[in-house]
Amino acid sequence: MESAISTIVTQFKNYAGKDGSSSTLSKEEFHNLVSSQLSNYVQNAGDPAAVDQLMSSLDENNDGELTFLEFWQLVGKLASQKGGFGQ
Amino acid sequence: MESAISTIVTQFKNYAGKDGSSSTLSKEEFHNLVSSQLSNYVQNAGDPAAVDQLMSSLDENNDGELTFLEFWQLVGKLASQKGGFGQ
Repeated sequence: MESAISTIVTQFKNYAGKDGSSSTLSKEEFHNLVSSQLSNYVQNAGDPAAVDQLMSSLDENNDGELTFLEFWQLVGKLASQKGGFGQ
Repeated sequence: MESAISTIVTQFKNYAGKDGSSSTLSKEEFHNLVSSQLSNYVQNAGDPAAVDQLMSSLDENNDGELTFLEFWQLVGKLASQKGGFGQ
């Protein structure tokens, strides 16, 4: 399980490091991550408006950047759905 | 990233399915999971009292069982620490 956790952290950092703050996802970085890495898990991953809306719903302090823990909440919801645990 | 998420879900289910509710971790299941799967990430993973205390801190409704999303909060904190994001 630790290697799977480490994979998620590393991939988050790869996308978060592309512009601006290397520890948060900008809107563009979030779009890239979702379309490249979560295309089967996120509904309408290829629809920019849907992904924008998803980002807004996760960005609790509305600063236009997602922290790792904000992103983690999304991954938990996706994992919970996929695992059949409900929300 | 999706395969890493799927790995965590599958491993959670493997441990959660050992006794009682197959969708939640009992105290014994949580001990087994932490000592087998998170021994490098959880401090004092081999100390039953420390693991008990950790479980209590995660079990928000105090029912003695951890749901997937309660467990997910722990994994997020561990991942955040390992990734150097703070809490």
